[in-house]
Amino acid sequence: MDYTSILHQVFDESKTDDGKVADYIPELSGINPAKFGIYLQTKDFKKIELGDSQEAFSIQSISKVFTLSMAFSLLGEKIWQRVGVEPSGSRFNSIIQLEYENGIPRNPFINAGALVVADILLSHLKNPKQDLLTFVQELAQDKSIDFDSRIAQSEKETGFHNASLVNMLKAHGNIKNNCSDVLDFYYHQCSLNMTCQQLAIAFSPFASLTEPFDFEGIILSKSQVKRINAIMLSCGFYDESGEFAFKVGLPGKSGVGGGIVAFQPHQYTIAVWSPKLNQKGNSVRGMKALELFTTLSGQSIF
Amino acid sequence: MDYTSILHQVFDESKTDDGKVADYIPELSGINPAKFGIYLQTKDFKKIELGDSQEAFSIQSISKVFTLSMAFSLLGEKIWQRVGVEPSGSRFNSIIQLEYENGIPRNPFINAGALVVADILLSHLKNPKQDLLTFVQELAQDKSIDFDSRIAQSEKETGFHNASLVNMLKAHGNIKNNCSDVLDFYYHQCSLNMTCQQLAIAFSPFASLTEPFDFEGIILSKSQVKRINAIMLSCGFYDESGEFAFKVGLPGKSGVGGGIVAFQPHQYTIAVWSPKLNQKGNSVRGMKALELFTTLSGQSIF
Amino acid sequence: MDYTSILHQVFDESKTDDGKVADYIPELSGINPAKFGIYLQTKDFKKIELGDSQEAFSIQSISKVFTLSMAFSLLGEKIWQRVGVEPSGSRFNSIIQLEYENGIPRNPFINAGALVVADILLSHLKNPKQDLLTFVQELAQDKSIDFDSRIAQSEKETGFHNASLVNMLKAHGNIKNNCSDVLDFYYHQCSLNMTCQQLAIAFSPFASLTEPFDFEGIILSKSQVKRINAIMLSCGFYDESGEFAFKVGLPGKSGVGGGIVAFQPHQYTIAVWSPKLNQKGNSVRGMKALELFTTLSGQSIF
Amino acid sequence: MDYTSILHQVFDESKTDDGKVADYIPELSGINPAKFGIYLQTKDFKKIELGDSQEAFSIQSISKVFTLSMAFSLLGEKIWQRVGVEPSGSRFNSIIQLEYENGIPRNPFINAGALVVADILLSHLKNPKQDLLTFVQELAQDKSIDFDSRIAQSEKETGFHNASLVNMLKAHGNIKNNCSDVLDFYYHQCSLNMTCQQLAIAFSPFASLTEPFDFEGIILSKSQVKRINAIMLSCGFYDESGEFAFKVGLPGKSGVGGGIVAFQPHQYTIAVWSPKLNQKGNSVRGMKALELFTTLSGQSIF
Repeated sequence: MDYTSILHQVFDESKTDDGKVADYIPELSGINPAKFGIYLQTKDFKKIELGDSQEAFSIQSISKVFTLSMAFSLLGEKIWQRVGVEPSGSRFNSIIQLEYENGIPRNPFINAGALVVADILLSHLKNPKQDLLTFVQELAQDKSIDFDSRIAQSEKETGFHNASLVNMLKAHGNIKNNCSDVLDFYYHQCSLNMTCQQLAIAFSPFASLTEPFDFEGIILSKSQVKRINAIMLSCGFYDESGEFAFKVGLPGKSGVGGGIVAFQPHQYTIAVWSPKLNQKGNSVRGMKALELFTTLSGQSIF
Repeated sequence: MDYTSILHQVFDESKTDDGKVADYIPELSGINPAKFGIYLQTKDFKKIELGDSQEAFSIQSISKVFTLSMAFSLLGEKIWQRVGVEPSGSRFNSIIQLEYENGIPRNPFINAGALVVADILLSHLKNPKQDLLTFVQELAQDKSIDFDSRIAQSEKETGFHNASLVNMLKAHGNIKNNCSDVLDFYYHQCSLNMTCQQLAIAFSPFASLTEPFDFEGIILSKSQVKRINAIMLSCGFYDESGEFAFKVGLPGKSGVGGGIVAFQPHQYTIAVWSPKLNQKGNSVRGMKALELFTTLSGQSIF
Repeated sequence: MDYTSILHQVFDESKTDDGKVADYIPELSGINPAKFGIYLQTKDFKKIELGDSQEAFSIQSISKVFTLSMAFSLLGEKIWQRVGVEPSGSRFNSIIQLEYENGIPRNPFINAGALVVADILLSHLKNPKQDLLTFVQELAQDKSIDFDSRIAQSEKETGFHNASLVNMLKAHGNIKNNCSDVLDFYYHQCSLNMTCQQLAIAFSPFASLTEPFDFEGIILSKSQVKRINAIMLSCGFYDESGEFAFKVGLPGKSGVGGGIVAFQPHQYTIAVWSPKLNQKGNSVRGMKALELFTTLSGQSIF
Repeated sequence: MDYTSILHQVFDESKTDDGKVADYIPELSGINPAKFGIYLQTKDFKKIELGDSQEAFSIQSISKVFTLSMAFSLLGEKIWQRVGVEPSGSRFNSIIQLEYENGIPRNPFINAGALVVADILLSHLKNPKQDLLTFVQELAQDKSIDFDSRIAQSEKETGFHNASLVNMLKAHGNIKNNCSDVLDFYYHQCSLNMTCQQLAIAFSPFASLTEPFDFEGIILSKSQVKRINAIMLSCGFYDESGEFAFKVGLPGKSGVGGGIVAFQPHQYTIAVWSPKLNQKGNSVRGMKALELFTTLSGQSIF
């Protein structure tokens, strides 16, 4: 069965109505829950797209892969002094481990870790927001990508949990800039609006479909790319990361906007978007679609 | 560079004296800390061995892969009602998550999870110890493999932590047999003595170097094998699993006897043995050797 | 209003049917839930009793006061090297703090602490069960008090949580005897059958209604008695100790058999029994009766 | 022995140099560590004072008794819907229980609880800071008592842990006002400067040395006063509360400024000040002095 047939079957069979649109960010809750898009890009740059694959949505936590790439490029191995690479085993926003582990977040994909990464970018870049935007535009080969300032503002006004996290990190000395500056940057990165197409293209360098990894001065060695991929596999889906590896078997990253991007190194990248989330914060249709896709295609890293 | 040259370089450069032989099991503490063996088996069944690769050692937690395979084959998907697939984020013997999560261990490779798996085998097999032994002998194609009853006895006499775990599981209704029977089986499985060679061969079916997976009635589908591999990658190295995925990028399993077995699906299996452990309970030389091996060979699943 | 009128009002107004008889010990679950007894003994040895005050019931955790008294008398201040005096802030059987705090239980009234106390008695007494029995008989001035071996046996067969605790303590080196011997003694102490009358009399020396504290060689100084009282106030009611101090304002101890004994030093002791428990494991009527009693009598230590 | 002789002995024998002045608040760290004052006030209003009993210091957490009294008077029993009365069993600033217990702090004397109490005062008072000041001045019969705005400012600039707590509370809906307003009030209450004499007098109504409890519209019934006292005994000394009850046996409250005030209801109040703290944040000399005082005087609530 070829990819096109598989994706059509996946698209049809994943149309569950289970799940619930994220409501903790007011601006996100207004999204049409029926939206559903898939975009596949293969190693020979064949593209298959279905549904709302050209519609931009809030990528939220998927942005953590972009900021980690920048910080890893800037700091090299020193970055691991400030954030770990282990799965957290707890809810994505848990403050508990932070207290027990003296302010070193478990990994860069839990909120606490992403806040530390944001702090690193603030310390090392003159125009961190613009630099991030340019980097993502280059990765996705699309200059139209932008922040959604309404979303960023909406999160800022209600983001007490993240404010709690960043202050706890600061209390442990693991935030160097002003807490409000770090939050401002963090909410902007989460507010990036991208389409399934843009995401699938932006992750091609992580899947080694294009080489080398060198975009606007953000350079990662092959080894560094592999390591980021390993973190995606271990930690990319909050405390459902084991479940995703178990059922799908691909590195990837999800966001509470309903987007998921995943890939098989050297083979393909795939981005899915559907806003209704399960209790762990991952897109219900997205998880189902990717599980079905690897089952039908018989392809996974294992 | 070919595998032979790479492995010689790996063998030489990994000879650190860091670490400490496991001392919590009296019988294990007497081992010669200088032991060091490597065995590689490739997809075309080329074999490369160095050092003490033919000497049997206590495989300890590596046995959890074998018992999980048996229980998964026996119960199918129902097994996941009694044990999860998420990394624990805590020390390998943590009883805390068990209390918070009502007696469902995070995954089958922490001790609590392996005790539940042992309980499943006791419920479903007439001669669980003999059946396990036969299964492992078939996997490794070597009838000489046996339990080391002195090790099993030694663990039983000092294994208060595991006794605590199994009673906590029983208090939550997740152990069906007598606690002492479960512990007896568990200590026997951990006491299996195997060489690097035997381990590398025994893991070939997990790496899909041989197919199908059908040994003495223990049958696993391709999909089931992939899922066990995903658990190995996420959870195979205690709370250093993320670090191992990050630095080595292979599914695998370690034991406090100092053994590590890892593999790249469809490419090779590799077993390493060196008794000195780091603070997380993984072989220092073993971790170093495997990191170096994937770096030099440029091969990993990412 | 005199004590007699107050107690009659208390008895009438506390007759709620809320709560649930303890069911985790099979032998306890058969008790008649309507049982209700009160016994008050004043400093001038006036006695007021109501309802089932002469009927013996399983004192369960109230026994922890007796064993602590013996161990404190035997070891003096050294006892605090093996068990603390702080409230636990967690469920009475929590194993979590034990793991974080290296096997030193928070206080002698959580199960883990009582198991350490039992272990101390086993190490220091030739006939620990008989010695405990004699001590309690002397305190209560009643030779008929005995263990209920059916209850002890019933607990032993289902007490996996306590077995988990004692093994965890042993794993941390804070149990010196065999785990099964410690559990056997512990289940016997909990199985002591006593009436409200016997309890009220037995606690008179703690309330300094009789002095000195010297029973069968178990001698406690005034200062030591005060300290045991302080632990009762801080830790006597599981994780409802703060609530009890807040609403009742007396040192005391409860058990899952439905008994509560409390006292105002130099004034009175009072024992209440009613088997239906709230979610924290304390007698619903008992808590209500004591709150009402101190409100109406205007007497508390504050 | 009379109180005067006892206090002189206490003063002399408590002069240890152990401990460390609080350094996490820069303005507090400059204090002379040799300061030592004691002030005793008896039921017949005899006053005994020694050392630096007339020198004002930062009362810090002792202020939590004053704000709790105001909030309890304003809300009555409804206050317990927003804060508990159980000891926390954890470090005074632990955010962990907050996460597990959905934003309801264990008691009003841990920082999280005091922040909720501050929020209540902000919601119910027009001039909360002035009202608190007036209330404390009335209690202590001294109009000269004031905030120390340098201390308040110093804490605000470095108080990331408290900022983390208040945002976590807000994320759980248990803070109604702006986080920064709550922190501003909280830091002002902690910055109150008082002498041992002022504190001993201010606590006389809690010890029922004066009645009724009615100061500037803050009215507490006898029962309410007793309940506040019970919380002081259970929770007044961070996670050393059990130890204090065990060794001293009095309700009281300590602060990281080195002050401790304690009392025996109907008998006396006593305030001690010495800036060097133990690891739990309580004054070393203060704890020692009070233990010695109750031992020598033979007086405690037990």
